[in-house]
Amino acid sequence: MSDGPFRIALLGHGTVGAAFHELLDARAEAIEAEAGRRPEISGVLTRSRGDFDDLLERSDLVVELMGGTEPAREYVLRALAAGRHVVTANKQLLSQHGEEIYEAARAGGVQLRFEGAVAGVVPAIRVMGETLAAAHIERVHGIVNGTTNYILTEMARTGASYETALAAAQQLGYAEANPTEDVSGKDAAAKMAILARLAFNVAVHLDDVSYEGIEHVTPEDLEYAKELGLSLKLVGSAERIDGGIAVHVHPVFLYAGHPLASVNGAFNAVTIESPAITEITLSGPGAGGPQTASAVLGDVISAIIPPPSLPPNPVELPIVTDVEFSHYLHVEVADRPGVLAQVAEILGLQGVSIRSVVQKGLGDDARLVMVMHPVLESRFQAAVDLISRLDFVRSTPRVMRVMEEVFE
Amino acid sequence: MSDGPFRIALLGHGTVGAAFHELLDARAEAIEAEAGRRPEISGVLTRSRGDFDDLLERSDLVVELMGGTEPAREYVLRALAAGRHVVTANKQLLSQHGEEIYEAARAGGVQLRFEGAVAGVVPAIRVMGETLAAAHIERVHGIVNGTTNYILTEMARTGASYETALAAAQQLGYAEANPTEDVSGKDAAAKMAILARLAFNVAVHLDDVSYEGIEHVTPEDLEYAKELGLSLKLVGSAERIDGGIAVHVHPVFLYAGHPLASVNGAFNAVTIESPAITEITLSGPGAGGPQTASAVLGDVISAIIPPPSLPPNPVELPIVTDVEFSHYLHVEVADRPGVLAQVAEILGLQGVSIRSVVQKGLGDDARLVMVMHPVLESRFQAAVDLISRLDFVRSTPRVMRVMEEVFE
Repeated sequence: MSDGPFRIALLGHGTVGAAFHELLDARAEAIEAEAGRRPEISGVLTRSRGDFDDLLERSDLVVELMGGTEPAREYVLRALAAGRHVVTANKQLLSQHGEEIYEAARAGGVQLRFEGAVAGVVPAIRVMGETLAAAHIERVHGIVNGTTNYILTEMARTGASYETALAAAQQLGYAEANPTEDVSGKDAAAKMAILARLAFNVAVHLDDVSYEGIEHVTPEDLEYAKELGLSLKLVGSAERIDGGIAVHVHPVFLYAGHPLASVNGAFNAVTIESPAITEITLSGPGAGGPQTASAVLGDVISAIIPPPSLPPNPVELPIVTDVEFSHYLHVEVADRPGVLAQVAEILGLQGVSIRSVVQKGLGDDARLVMVMHPVLESRFQAAVDLISRLDFVRSTPRVMRVMEEVFE
Repeated sequence: MSDGPFRIALLGHGTVGAAFHELLDARAEAIEAEAGRRPEISGVLTRSRGDFDDLLERSDLVVELMGGTEPAREYVLRALAAGRHVVTANKQLLSQHGEEIYEAARAGGVQLRFEGAVAGVVPAIRVMGETLAAAHIERVHGIVNGTTNYILTEMARTGASYETALAAAQQLGYAEANPTEDVSGKDAAAKMAILARLAFNVAVHLDDVSYEGIEHVTPEDLEYAKELGLSLKLVGSAERIDGGIAVHVHPVFLYAGHPLASVNGAFNAVTIESPAITEITLSGPGAGGPQTASAVLGDVISAIIPPPSLPPNPVELPIVTDVEFSHYLHVEVADRPGVLAQVAEILGLQGVSIRSVVQKGLGDDARLVMVMHPVLESRFQAAVDLISRLDFVRSTPRVMRVMEEVFE
C-alpha cells in the first residue's frame, strides 16, 4: 500500500532542526507501520548548504525550522504555492506574517501546521482547533516563555537578583547569550498573538500585543509576593473585552489557587477559559529542542495521515500486577526499647529500605511514621503482615502509596 | 455547498444527553458556518420513547450517552455495522467491550470517537492519539474521578470524616445517591483501562486493572499527609514495566512538586510521560454534564469535517489596549499622620477601590502595600503618577498586576 517514501525537506538544522532530524529517523519505522508511508528527510537547507528550489522539487512536505522572518517567509510562501504541506515552529513568522501565510495555504489547498510555534509540546494549538472547536473561548492565559519562568522561579526560590538568576539560566542553556527577546516579553507576545488568532479568529499582529518583560523585577517583589501568598509569573493574556479583544504580556502576581501559579522552572502552561467548559489547563516543558521537535513530528504525522478516529489494532503485552511503589507506613507501638529495631529488621529482611522515619511519644505508646524507598508491593505487604503480628503493635498499620515529583 | 443537515441520533437524554442537546442547538449555526452542514438531532431514544431502527435509518451519526453496557453495546455495534459514525462517552462500554467495538468500527469503515469517556473536557484521548502520535509513552497518571477528588480535597481542607465529606459532595451534586462506582475506584479503573489502551496500544480490560477506593481514608491520613507536605489523591496509573504493562488505581500520597498534587476539587488531570517530551499535564473540570457534552460535541464536529489544519478566515474585532486589572502598589512614605488618607483619596478620585492595605513602620518611614480591586490600567496609572509626586513619598512606587484564581 506504500506510495514510496514521504519526502520531507528540512529548512534549518539548529537545535530544533537537528533534534527533529534525529527523532524522525528514530521513529520512521513506527510511523510507516501506522501511515503506510515511510517519512524521510529528502534534503536539508542551512545557511551554508542546500538549494531551496532543488529541495522543494524533491519534497512532499516542508518543515521550516530556520526561525526569523526572512528568508523563512519567502520559502514558506513558495512551498505553499507549489502545493507542499508546511510544518513550522516559527513564532516570529506567524505573529508578523500569519495572515499572508494562512491565505497562501488556503490558496494552495495544503496544510499548514504549527503546534511547535507555541509552548513546545504543550498542545495548545490542537486543543483549541479540535477539542474546543465548538466552544466559545473567552480568555486564554499562558506562561509561554520557559526562560523567564525559570528566572522568576529561581529568584523566588533563592532570593537571587534578576542578573544572578539570568546568569544561572544562561549557564544551564535555558537562556541565550543575548536574552533580550525572551526577557523583554517579546517572545511571549509573539506566541500570544498566535494563540489569540486561534482563540478568537481575529487577525492579531505582534504589534497589537502590549508587552512588558521581567528585567525590572526585584528580589523584593518576590519577597512581598511570598508574604502575600502570591506567585510572580510572566503571564500572557488574550481576552474578549468590550466587544473587542485585548492581548498583553506582563509580570503578574497570581493567587495560589490559579492554575498557572504552580507552574515552575522552564515549564510552559496555557489555560483556556470558556463558559461551556470552565477551563482547561495544559502544561509541560517549554521549547527545548527535543520537545519542540516532538510537536513538529506530531504535525508531520497529521499531514501524512488524517489523525486516527480509532485506536489501532492492539499488540500483546503481559499485564503486570506486582508493581514497585514507595510506601508510607504508620503504626502505633508500645514505647519501649528495641521496637524500632525490630520493625526495621522485618522491613530489611523483605528488602524494604527505609527512606525516612519519625517516632513520636504518646504517653505509654509511640507512633512510628515511615516512608520507604520503592519496592515491590508484594514484599512491602509481606513485611506489613509480619509487623502487624508483633506483640508491641497497638494499631492496625496504615499504609499508603507515595509518588515522587516527576521533574526537578 | 450544503449536503443537507448532518443528522444525529441521540441515545440517552440524562444529564449529559440533555446538556449535549442544548449545546448542539446553541452552536449549530456556528458549526454550519465552518463545516458547511448544519448538525441537528434527528431523533432521541430514551427508555420510554423512540425506536432504535427508525432512528438509525434517519441518522448520519449516532451519539450514545446512555451509559452502562447493555443495550448500549448492541446499539453501538449495530450503528457501526450500518456504516454510521459513533460518538460515545461510555467508559463502562469501552473498558469492557472496547476491542469488539473498535473492531466493528474498523470493519464498518467509520469513525468511533470517545473523548467524553475520560476526564470530561480534558482532551487526553486526542492528545495521545494526535500530538503524541510519534511519542513512545512510558507512563500515564491520572486523577480521573472528580467525585473522589472533591471528597479528598474537602477532607484535607476541613478535617472532615469521609462520611461527612461524601454527604457534602452528594448535596452539591458531585456524588450520586449510590456513590459506590466512584468511591470504590471502579469508575477511575474503567477510565485508566481506556487510557492504557491508547497509551500502549494494548487491549486492557477493566478486569486487568487493580483498584482500591477512598472509603477507608481517615482524617488522620490527611493530617499526616499535611505534616509531611504531601497531598492525598486517588491516582490511576498505567505504566510500562518489566516488558509488560501495569494499570492500577489507589489512594496515593503525592509530593508537592508532582503535577497532580495541586489538582483540587472536582477537577480531573492526566499526566503523560514520554522520554521525548518529559511530560504533559492536562487538567480541567471533571465529568459534569456541560463539560462532557462539550467534549462530545468536539468529537461530533471532528466526524463532520476533518480537523482543520489552518485557522479559518479571520473576522474583524477591535484591539482593546486599556484593560481592567487588579493592581498591587508598594510605596515607601514618611511616617506621619494623614499619609494613608491622602494616598487613599487620590486612588478614590481615580475610581480605584482598595481591597487590602498593610502599613508597616520603618523608623522614620513607613511602607504601604496595597492590593486594589480591578480597574482600567489608565486610571490606576494616573493615580500612581499623582501619588509618586506627593512630597512625603520616599520611593518610586512599585506596581504589579494581580490575577485571581479562576475557579472556587
